[in-house]
Amino acid sequence: MNLIKPVWLPEKFKVNFRACKLWAWRIHRELYPFGNRGELRATAAINGLRLRSHLRFSRKCSGGYTLTRIHYVIVGIVATIVTLSGVPAQAGDDLMERALEAFKPIPSVVPAIKGNAVTHEKVELGKLLFFDPRLSASEIISCNTCHNLATGGVDAGPTSVGHGWQKGPRRSPTVFNAVFNVAQFWDGRAVDLKTQAKSPIQESVEMNATPDHVVNTLSSMPGYVELFKKAFPNEASPVSFDNFAKAIEAFEATLITPASKFDQFLEGDANALNAQEKAGLSAFLGKGCAGCHYGINVGGQDYFPFGIVETPGGDVLPPADKGRFTVTRTASDEYVFRAAPLRNVALRAPYFHSGQVWSLKQAVGVMGTAQLWAKLTDKEEDDIVAFLDTLTGQLPRIDYPILPVRTNNTPEPSFK
Amino acid sequence: MNLIKPVWLPEKFKVNFRACKLWAWRIHRELYPFGNRGELRATAAINGLRLRSHLRFSRKCSGGYTLTRIHYVIVGIVATIVTLSGVPAQAGDDLMERALEAFKPIPSVVPAIKGNAVTHEKVELGKLLFFDPRLSASEIISCNTCHNLATGGVDAGPTSVGHGWQKGPRRSPTVFNAVFNVAQFWDGRAVDLKTQAKSPIQESVEMNATPDHVVNTLSSMPGYVELFKKAFPNEASPVSFDNFAKAIEAFEATLITPASKFDQFLEGDANALNAQEKAGLSAFLGKGCAGCHYGINVGGQDYFPFGIVETPGGDVLPPADKGRFTVTRTASDEYVFRAAPLRNVALRAPYFHSGQVWSLKQAVGVMGTAQLWAKLTDKEEDDIVAFLDTLTGQLPRIDYPILPVRTNNTPEPSFK
Repeated sequence: MNLIKPVWLPEKFKVNFRACKLWAWRIHRELYPFGNRGELRATAAINGLRLRSHLRFSRKCSGGYTLTRIHYVIVGIVATIVTLSGVPAQAGDDLMERALEAFKPIPSVVPAIKGNAVTHEKVELGKLLFFDPRLSASEIISCNTCHNLATGGVDAGPTSVGHGWQKGPRRSPTVFNAVFNVAQFWDGRAVDLKTQAKSPIQESVEMNATPDHVVNTLSSMPGYVELFKKAFPNEASPVSFDNFAKAIEAFEATLITPASKFDQFLEGDANALNAQEKAGLSAFLGKGCAGCHYGINVGGQDYFPFGIVETPGGDVLPPADKGRFTVTRTASDEYVFRAAPLRNVALRAPYFHSGQVWSLKQAVGVMGTAQLWAKLTDKEEDDIVAFLDTLTGQLPRIDYPILPVRTNNTPEPSFK
Repeated sequence: MNLIKPVWLPEKFKVNFRACKLWAWRIHRELYPFGNRGELRATAAINGLRLRSHLRFSRKCSGGYTLTRIHYVIVGIVATIVTLSGVPAQAGDDLMERALEAFKPIPSVVPAIKGNAVTHEKVELGKLLFFDPRLSASEIISCNTCHNLATGGVDAGPTSVGHGWQKGPRRSPTVFNAVFNVAQFWDGRAVDLKTQAKSPIQESVEMNATPDHVVNTLSSMPGYVELFKKAFPNEASPVSFDNFAKAIEAFEATLITPASKFDQFLEGDANALNAQEKAGLSAFLGKGCAGCHYGINVGGQDYFPFGIVETPGGDVLPPADKGRFTVTRTASDEYVFRAAPLRNVALRAPYFHSGQVWSLKQAVGVMGTAQLWAKLTDKEEDDIVAFLDTLTGQLPRIDYPILPVRTNNTPEPSFK
């Protein structure tokens, strides 16, 4: 098994309990599917050096599995050996090469979706559905209300407001590039965009509708019936809640933002980033940010505890929101969240699932103290923010839709 | 003075108290600016015949002026004389000619705005402002929330929901072709679109913001500051609440919907309407609908009492909403509203200021009993609906904007 993806350890790796937590966490998570037994090869890279460790776990337990201090120490020692066995970083390391080990550029073509061909007809239908407030109970809230394509695919925050002016518990995640995330929502409770699309529309604090309301509303408008027929040909009942979700997934798959300065850099243009941005990228890799924020979305690929080094204040990490724990009911998933995907992050203040940090520099600082083992200097924070600014890509131009006309059979809004 | 615009009297004009009300109303309104004294020439047309009457009023009164039964009777008699002196309708009347006396086609070019040149820069800025929810206190309500360009320039109704989930008192009026209305709002309390734009943003039940919030928000974003400079060159302080309203007015002036089937008919294509649509147009003219709904917007040109013949039920005409009375504080303006502009009316259920009638045919029926003096037959209602369907024009294609990015100085949302 080679389960662990490349992990970037901090440049100055200190062997202490806290420093091992993140590393232990990732090993634990990979083992977990095998009943807490197993072996794995962990791969790490520091400054372009690829390091490997081979680790066996044989702990057997019943019920909830919690990482203990002993586990952290064991794994920490392993990690340290791995680290120390590496050759020290070379001054002449190629930043682009290191970046390419951690990240991938956003493709310029729409990615394929397994089991849901992204056809022109489906995308066009999905766009209408995404913008149609009449699918919510009140008929004034659309997907775009909270995932506003005019403002980075999110609302103004801090957390979303839905039916009856109820405040949701978390910051709206962006739909831009969401197709590249390992799963959807801050806690990853939806395996894909199709599954995600079915959730907010039914949530009582969001759109507060039912699948029946959605299907009845869509079926009442000949304009929609025709579009569903075209998007799902050869189906006996094209207007269905499943197909509603599939069409939205197809549209959202097109919401990718290629051609950022960082993408140009990854694609070989060494001059796409200026000196400060390169310094920021170097710090991002070297300080361990890329340990969680890696892959095509510079995040969004895996789950990590928030507060691995130091627990943030209750405003940033509200005690009541236990994150992925509510999905897995596993104690070790308490305060675990999907690493935020950082594409276009500069467009999306306020930050974190709580939406309580309005400045990107401050957010970088919080990450430094909460997740890393060295407080970032002011210059490092500025450099990292400069690098994060280069993650803003070309947002797709959207032709604002003209929606099918309601009929006398269309359900009326309900505000209760 | 030739103050009164052409008025279409019903084909079968009955001389009774109620039948005179509308006619009296219009004469009264034209006289009012002259201190209840004056003379006028009233022009009426029945089945293509143009009829004129010459009327003198010399009543002098102090304080509020109310139309009395005597006035109605006087005017009724005059109207009757006018009517009876007309030659009976000819079978070979030209429908297109009659239509051209009452209506004008929507121009294909954006109309000029007095004192506010509609420049490309202003329109582009106005579009951003129109779609920007961050200008509201909660930062989730934009102009487009209630005047949704995807659904005929209105929300789903019945009345709009604003800050704190408060329900507004009236149905959202459409922004499409609003530039052609005599004034804005159901009660005409804003003389133009610029004045209108300043209102909902400040209303506590709508966007609940202040001019300061708007200016501070816009000033905090360099993207906006740049756009204001371009739209209002040579101004010392281009980012102002006044200029915010001017830019929105300029954008809204572009929201016109030419090239409907009816426009094609008015422009000379006799075949643009089919037989039923022509029958509907003929009924619309002959039954008196065009007495209020005339001009380029097929309405929106003047104010009329709702319930001139028969007061509708309290659901359709809620007793608490006295219409234009709240603007003028004149007793005769109780339950007076601006005649609804009927362009694209088929896209905009539910109907009336109360938004309580969801079917266009039913709305036509209500108008028949409330405003006219002959109940419309089922066929007449169907014909008129078919005609109203021809008022749906070509809606402008809108490129959904990408809004300037908020900064650390941008005010945070407030949900209280």
